[in-house]
Amino acid sequence: MAGSPSRAAGRRLQLPLLCLFLQGATAVLFAVFVRYNHKTDAALWHRGNHSNADNEFYFRYPSFQDVHAMVFVGFGFLMVFLQRYGFSSVGFTFLLAAFALQWSTLVQGFLHSFHSGHIHVGVESMINADFCVGAVLISSGALLGKTGPAQLLLMALLEVVLFGINEFVLLHLLGVRDAGGSMTIHTFGAYFGLVLSRVLYRPQLEKSKHRQGSVYHSDLFAMIGTIFLWIFWPSFNSALTALGTGQHQTALNTYYSLAASTLSTFALSALVGEDGRLDMVHIQNAALAGGVVVGTSSEMMLTPFGALAAGFLAGTVSTLGYKFFTPILESKFKVQDTSGVHNLHGMPGVLGALLGVLVAGLATHEAYGDGLERVFPLIAEGQRSATSQAMYQLFGLFVTLMFASVGGGLGAGLLLKLPFLDSPLDSQCYEDQVHWQVPGEHEDEAQRPLRVEEADTQA
Amino acid sequence: MAGSPSRAAGRRLQLPLLCLFLQGATAVLFAVFVRYNHKTDAALWHRGNHSNADNEFYFRYPSFQDVHAMVFVGFGFLMVFLQRYGFSSVGFTFLLAAFALQWSTLVQGFLHSFHSGHIHVGVESMINADFCVGAVLISSGALLGKTGPAQLLLMALLEVVLFGINEFVLLHLLGVRDAGGSMTIHTFGAYFGLVLSRVLYRPQLEKSKHRQGSVYHSDLFAMIGTIFLWIFWPSFNSALTALGTGQHQTALNTYYSLAASTLSTFALSALVGEDGRLDMVHIQNAALAGGVVVGTSSEMMLTPFGALAAGFLAGTVSTLGYKFFTPILESKFKVQDTSGVHNLHGMPGVLGALLGVLVAGLATHEAYGDGLERVFPLIAEGQRSATSQAMYQLFGLFVTLMFASVGGGLGAGLLLKLPFLDSPLDSQCYEDQVHWQVPGEHEDEAQRPLRVEEADTQA
Amino acid sequence: MAGSPSRAAGRRLQLPLLCLFLQGATAVLFAVFVRYNHKTDAALWHRGNHSNADNEFYFRYPSFQDVHAMVFVGFGFLMVFLQRYGFSSVGFTFLLAAFALQWSTLVQGFLHSFHSGHIHVGVESMINADFCVGAVLISSGALLGKTGPAQLLLMALLEVVLFGINEFVLLHLLGVRDAGGSMTIHTFGAYFGLVLSRVLYRPQLEKSKHRQGSVYHSDLFAMIGTIFLWIFWPSFNSALTALGTGQHQTALNTYYSLAASTLSTFALSALVGEDGRLDMVHIQNAALAGGVVVGTSSEMMLTPFGALAAGFLAGTVSTLGYKFFTPILESKFKVQDTSGVHNLHGMPGVLGALLGVLVAGLATHEAYGDGLERVFPLIAEGQRSATSQAMYQLFGLFVTLMFASVGGGLGAGLLLKLPFLDSPLDSQCYEDQVHWQVPGEHEDEAQRPLRVEEADTQA
Repeated sequence: MAGSPSRAAGRRLQLPLLCLFLQGATAVLFAVFVRYNHKTDAALWHRGNHSNADNEFYFRYPSFQDVHAMVFVGFGFLMVFLQRYGFSSVGFTFLLAAFALQWSTLVQGFLHSFHSGHIHVGVESMINADFCVGAVLISSGALLGKTGPAQLLLMALLEVVLFGINEFVLLHLLGVRDAGGSMTIHTFGAYFGLVLSRVLYRPQLEKSKHRQGSVYHSDLFAMIGTIFLWIFWPSFNSALTALGTGQHQTALNTYYSLAASTLSTFALSALVGEDGRLDMVHIQNAALAGGVVVGTSSEMMLTPFGALAAGFLAGTVSTLGYKFFTPILESKFKVQDTSGVHNLHGMPGVLGALLGVLVAGLATHEAYGDGLERVFPLIAEGQRSATSQAMYQLFGLFVTLMFASVGGGLGAGLLLKLPFLDSPLDSQCYEDQVHWQVPGEHEDEAQRPLRVEEADTQA
Repeated sequence: MAGSPSRAAGRRLQLPLLCLFLQGATAVLFAVFVRYNHKTDAALWHRGNHSNADNEFYFRYPSFQDVHAMVFVGFGFLMVFLQRYGFSSVGFTFLLAAFALQWSTLVQGFLHSFHSGHIHVGVESMINADFCVGAVLISSGALLGKTGPAQLLLMALLEVVLFGINEFVLLHLLGVRDAGGSMTIHTFGAYFGLVLSRVLYRPQLEKSKHRQGSVYHSDLFAMIGTIFLWIFWPSFNSALTALGTGQHQTALNTYYSLAASTLSTFALSALVGEDGRLDMVHIQNAALAGGVVVGTSSEMMLTPFGALAAGFLAGTVSTLGYKFFTPILESKFKVQDTSGVHNLHGMPGVLGALLGVLVAGLATHEAYGDGLERVFPLIAEGQRSATSQAMYQLFGLFVTLMFASVGGGLGAGLLLKLPFLDSPLDSQCYEDQVHWQVPGEHEDEAQRPLRVEEADTQA
Repeated sequence: MAGSPSRAAGRRLQLPLLCLFLQGATAVLFAVFVRYNHKTDAALWHRGNHSNADNEFYFRYPSFQDVHAMVFVGFGFLMVFLQRYGFSSVGFTFLLAAFALQWSTLVQGFLHSFHSGHIHVGVESMINADFCVGAVLISSGALLGKTGPAQLLLMALLEVVLFGINEFVLLHLLGVRDAGGSMTIHTFGAYFGLVLSRVLYRPQLEKSKHRQGSVYHSDLFAMIGTIFLWIFWPSFNSALTALGTGQHQTALNTYYSLAASTLSTFALSALVGEDGRLDMVHIQNAALAGGVVVGTSSEMMLTPFGALAAGFLAGTVSTLGYKFFTPILESKFKVQDTSGVHNLHGMPGVLGALLGVLVAGLATHEAYGDGLERVFPLIAEGQRSATSQAMYQLFGLFVTLMFASVGGGLGAGLLLKLPFLDSPLDSQCYEDQVHWQVPGEHEDEAQRPLRVEEADTQA
């Protein structure tokens, strides 16, 4: 029925109406609730007799810009690896992120910074919103090519709320530390998306199998994404850690961890590759696992050696996951994980949470000095022992997996299966033409767009 | 005559001689007039007993680098969308920008910072120069594919001067505020280029129509430009605003405005698209209109809601402009606007100026607090009422449109029509081979360059 | 023998074992020797009663991120110009850099910051490590396409040590200034690679000649590298100069120099090009020579005019080098310089060193004021005259050339010729398929990888 008039009319209206509704509702909520915070509003700031040079902007904005580049350039281009889904990969990332950053400003604002009836925004809320967007994009990576943009927006609508609640429970109720989001971002985003992918399982997906791989230049575009994620990850993990030594140490740890995960990825990729040949999928993804795995612990006294060891392990696990576990995930668990988020965000995220348990459990006043107040305030104040903090960290992982699975499965899963939603047919997955006006690949074809098979056994 | 010896010889010498002359003259002027300012020159700085940490470098240089990335990566790759004009798009952007930044350092220096016979340079002059380059590149977007590099350099030679004078009239004589350049950069650059394109109208341009579209991978390259412009626009608008809350608030407003223009662009693109399909041209361009539209007002008390509303409107107007107005612009007004600068910079720039009129007219001491001195010093000092400031802002828009139209039309238009200038034939527009040694598109063609039709009815 | 079982097995194990060994050894050395420095470790920092805002992180980290982008995005994509070697170009850059940054942290640490049995790391060591990586990548540019990844890792293993020693001799023993590395990075890296390329000379390389050029889109990918190198070079040269005016002036000088080298590159490229057509190879490379040539002198009182003049000269020399000298280098000197590092780094590096000699020789107390202590401490303290400093600078160039040539020739050259190392056959150079699982270039070929000729006369 892909070509039927009613379906075309529905498609024509579904995305516009949803975008307009979401943007309209968000704008109204902004009008009512969102205000500049005292570091952003001149009238409030100068009342406090602060120096301009002390404005948090100068300590956080460069990190924000790096995070922003990761979200839009990094995630956007990383997903361009699919040969005929480049427009959708970078375009839907763009759309999802632009909506989710507004929506998460509201959700996180209500939960974290709601005072006297208002949400107060500034560079910290910008970073927090981009972090939440990161989780949404991770989830979308598991669905890539199998969902339409309206479905993705609905996913974001729900996921942002669950993300905010999970984050609130972990950071505020449980006193868990997770500066770079091994749990709140990577584990949550990955398992939310994977459970959702399970609910949306397509037994006939092999009809689109021929478009599921990359071509030579799509792999090069994807490397743009990889490299921007890799270089800026130290800024991601350190964007919201304590000023001064806090940001400094977090960035340094992440830098080392990524270097080690790159070496283990190349080693393992060649080891398991046919004839010892490297696989671009591994390099594009598993080399980044070092950033994920120190998301929780990079603000702690991980030590440079600890960072290398963690990164090495993460690159290894992630590469082996791509080689051996992704096929099983589809055949045995019926999870079709398009861009392998289980390998890049899922397993390394869980490992990162466990590493956080370990490093938190080893915290001492001697090792952290005055830094203990900033990293583990409850230990510094004597309310918790290091072991107790470690237990809370472990419980935080458990809570995150619950929220992600139940939320992804029941909530978003059922929502995205609403029958009127415009979802691509099994034979039209991973295909830009379903959603975009696509030019040819060569000059002489420029006026002759690629054809989508309009007939389909489902129709 | 494209292939005739004399023409080839002319082409061979025209660009080199112009580059050498312009660079030589610029260097001489630098030798005579340009000196380090007191924040750049150690001997001057330390005399003032300043701390190194107070150096303006640390408050502006990260923003400068983001602006720099927008100019060279953003504009450069955004224009790569043309299927056979990628080398020229990114290459001529590079050349124009490298010349214009030097030339505008001189022109802006003479007008804004000429003391005791010298121009004093530092990070602020670097940002100002890059801003002027932005206007030049906007203008070149209207001419893309239809002009040779020598013509573009001559355009820059004149446009930089007019840009500097217009900016001087607005900011210094009229006391107009325009931190992110809705007027001075976007409106000026767009209408300068559009009027110029009108003067250079080519009735036979359909001879090159088959090269005017994109191909699949050229659209992906263009998205690199889009995304870098989008992520760094908050730095662009805030690069020269007041330190502290000034930069903080400006960045935040721009971030929201861009998010909203992205949603309205997707909504409108699908709504007006064939079968509800999205159009890459809209996403690549109109999603950026949110940055343009708050260029004047983002340093003012726009409020987060105001930023969303402005961005939403700009994305809408811009997308509709691409769909409905660009064809009319060519058929009725004889303006061939290659990359649609009227939709991305022209209309959103004018809207942004009008928004500035509105927000300036609402300025009160209560809303701005101590910030009033920095944003509207003339109101703070009691020299002007808010309404009067609003009128000046409106007059500034009028002045800008005059300078752009008259300058673009009479000055640059006549200059670029000089008969000896090497301009591509109607059948050779949008074609890299006119200016570059071009390899094939595939390995087996690497030694067999594409052929340009040497014969032409003009010849 | 490419397809023989034993060779395939050797290839399968060579890279993995080397990566695992190098990463393992590095990690052990990190565990024993590497510790956070007092700006990174909260316990040490707060003991000093410092303010968080004073942490060096805020003055250096934004520059570090720009340098990091240059190393991974800039160098990585610049080398993608080869039509069938894109995966290797960006992939091996990634691998080499990830290893070399760890290894140089150790080597530079032992030589520069070894106190009480430990190496202390922080943002400065991160920048220094990335600088050393830059030299390694420059060297690899001369070998591109003719060496396997295991050979490159061995090269890095040796080169990092020699780089560290040369840098130690220059900066610490001779008191030479070289903030942006005209000598230590560019001259060293270039001649190390060129001598190595001489030792590895392949008389039968024309068997792979058909893959040595670019194709249309590979040139566009390479421009991504060029533009990122170009925009961030001011941060590269200023990353480790004195805080305040030191960084400010260095960035400004570099910005001007690059602008001028861009104009001279376009001028010369059109002048020497066939029919006056521009050559992408020149634009991609020679336009960057302005950054190299002020590597030594940009922290000195070069003056804005001096920066323009230097950049102009460098762009000219570099473009002429590509046109006229590269062919001679191969035919007469038997040096096969794949990406022309002699033109971009070698000659401009030597020119930059000589420019440093000149500018150092002109240093006076009047010109530098308090800045003299920071730029030329030995002159400020009266231990050296300006002329004497100039002589030391010249001697530094001589030492660098010695270390690079002897090291590259004897050491690395012999090491890389070890017969068991997996080196591509003469007919398989510049070919990704030797090292990677490569998809087709078009959708319909996605399952049909390109074929590498398995038979070879060497076999």
